[in-house]
Amino acid sequence: MERGKKECKRPIDISHKKQAQTNPRHNQTVVFKNGVQIIGGYSIVGQKEGGGPLKSTFSKIMEDEYFGEKTHEAAEQKMFEYAIRGAIKSAGLERGDVDMMFSGDLLNQITSSSFAARSFDMMFIGIYGACSTMALTLGIASCLVEAGFIKNAVVSAGSHFATAERQYRTPLELGNQKPPNAQWTVTGVGASVLTSSTSPSASIHPRVTSVTFGKVCDWGVKDVNNMGAAMAPSAAHTLIAHFRDTNTKPEDYCHIFTGDLGKLGENICRDLLANANYPVDANYTDCGRLIYGKSQNQYQGGSGCGCSAVCLNGFILNKLRKGEYKKILFVGTGALLSPVASFQGNTVPGISHCVCIES
Amino acid sequence: MERGKKECKRPIDISHKKQAQTNPRHNQTVVFKNGVQIIGGYSIVGQKEGGGPLKSTFSKIMEDEYFGEKTHEAAEQKMFEYAIRGAIKSAGLERGDVDMMFSGDLLNQITSSSFAARSFDMMFIGIYGACSTMALTLGIASCLVEAGFIKNAVVSAGSHFATAERQYRTPLELGNQKPPNAQWTVTGVGASVLTSSTSPSASIHPRVTSVTFGKVCDWGVKDVNNMGAAMAPSAAHTLIAHFRDTNTKPEDYCHIFTGDLGKLGENICRDLLANANYPVDANYTDCGRLIYGKSQNQYQGGSGCGCSAVCLNGFILNKLRKGEYKKILFVGTGALLSPVASFQGNTVPGISHCVCIES
Repeated sequence: MERGKKECKRPIDISHKKQAQTNPRHNQTVVFKNGVQIIGGYSIVGQKEGGGPLKSTFSKIMEDEYFGEKTHEAAEQKMFEYAIRGAIKSAGLERGDVDMMFSGDLLNQITSSSFAARSFDMMFIGIYGACSTMALTLGIASCLVEAGFIKNAVVSAGSHFATAERQYRTPLELGNQKPPNAQWTVTGVGASVLTSSTSPSASIHPRVTSVTFGKVCDWGVKDVNNMGAAMAPSAAHTLIAHFRDTNTKPEDYCHIFTGDLGKLGENICRDLLANANYPVDANYTDCGRLIYGKSQNQYQGGSGCGCSAVCLNGFILNKLRKGEYKKILFVGTGALLSPVASFQGNTVPGISHCVCIES
Repeated sequence: MERGKKECKRPIDISHKKQAQTNPRHNQTVVFKNGVQIIGGYSIVGQKEGGGPLKSTFSKIMEDEYFGEKTHEAAEQKMFEYAIRGAIKSAGLERGDVDMMFSGDLLNQITSSSFAARSFDMMFIGIYGACSTMALTLGIASCLVEAGFIKNAVVSAGSHFATAERQYRTPLELGNQKPPNAQWTVTGVGASVLTSSTSPSASIHPRVTSVTFGKVCDWGVKDVNNMGAAMAPSAAHTLIAHFRDTNTKPEDYCHIFTGDLGKLGENICRDLLANANYPVDANYTDCGRLIYGKSQNQYQGGSGCGCSAVCLNGFILNKLRKGEYKKILFVGTGALLSPVASFQGNTVPGISHCVCIES
């Protein structure tokens, strides 16, 4: 079998599982009256991502994955500093203008985010949503901006292939081969700057108009190399909650993006949505499927906090700014994976958070 | 030297360090118009904590630190489930009445919180603020409740001595001795239930009236056994920001509690506050100093997310409910410690968040 070529379709039988359901007593969606403007965005990626089909949409492609540092962990932290500075600059603001930073990453104790926060004189809110972090930071920060508690916020999320492999699976030095269901952790950080819609520039920027916060879904997946299957039920669950709460259907959106389900996870999510009478067609794509080209052979596609973060702060925001998309859903998808928990025989629960952005 | 008896006073010279300063352009404090009511609270602790001076204030003392589970990690998760259920019950609500759960812990990928979230049909927001997590979840959740985005929320934080030692330092089986500056991670989980002040029971519960979010402070401490020194500057920094933003002084509060600075950290914090012209006297105590008795010899005192969480949901809320305290400050103090970061030679930055609660 050629390495990485075989795309496994639906290896887990989902027909006997209970459908993704939502508690009708809970409205999971916060709809904003004014909406929160995304006035700046920046994405920085590694060589592999920079050699993929989205190449031209990223703000910066690093020359190598050390980014001038001695360790991959230090490189990841520097990428955060770089992306946050870049996003603030692209918003036409100075560092002192931004009140609060919301950030998270995949490293234990989210050190890349919190160590990067030392470089900025801002309040810092550490978020852990695994790979759903970009949507979660965007959602929580939008709530605080919409409510008028803060004026400007910067939100960011990111990951690094080398640090994530070492921490979650095996160090790269071992040269382990990945199984066909695996995904490739994206090396990249994305950052966005938010401001309240009462600002003068109100009409020209994409706006966050609603957020659907997710619940933890556990369908019993234990394979740490099959994150798509672990996360897909939660993505479908949160999307169904969004459609129900806002009384919309998939066709009401120009496009729906999930974060990093990969090809396999995207297929599972499509099936679950179709079973719940919310079928999606060409207007749904997973960012993990998009980020690498076919010739790059990255198994099921990209994963990691960075995957959705750089896609959002690259081509998605670009298309919203140009008016090519009027209204999209951005669904961060997280696998609540922990090596210790897995070694102790636990499953991998998933969680997804959905943000509606309109131009 | 008798083990644990010697209290080291100010082993780091802070006189040459720049004072904890705040950017006068940033208001770090969100003052609520209505205030958010704390209508329920629950605390569960281990045997050691249950044998200390606060014994009578905890909701439940476990019989042993496995809590009927096979691993300490599973016990920690069960403690979360127990505390959250207990808090919801104490609020007179049912599980379906609570919309959103905010939680965090010290384990990598906050698995205790996110795995516990599977038992509850609620939206889940994962927070990582190290030991400041109780104050951070309380602060963020209060913002969302005050803004009317959600009606009822449960917030929780906790830690377990055995899981934290294994992850951050050395497994207990090695029998390592702790140095005199060390603290003892509290085995305990605290949970509180919040609701908006427009509820009928408005007047009888303690209310969160303002939140001061912290910035990351790094004074160069590298000793992973001296968390008090790593966190104290951030505690002083956030308190100074609170006093400045609200135009108050320490004497305007019945009591000020920091989370888990321990005896040494409390002394450093007192010095920093005095140098900034906000001297505190008998109206300031650190929860880490309170939780263990003198005869328990727990070095500088308690630490961990659980320390401040069980004190808040034990004696602090009790005294507020009885009207013995009219207005307090609760400051969660976090050391952004990561073993990988420490092995790579990094310092331990600190962060603290402050919540004002009135009865």
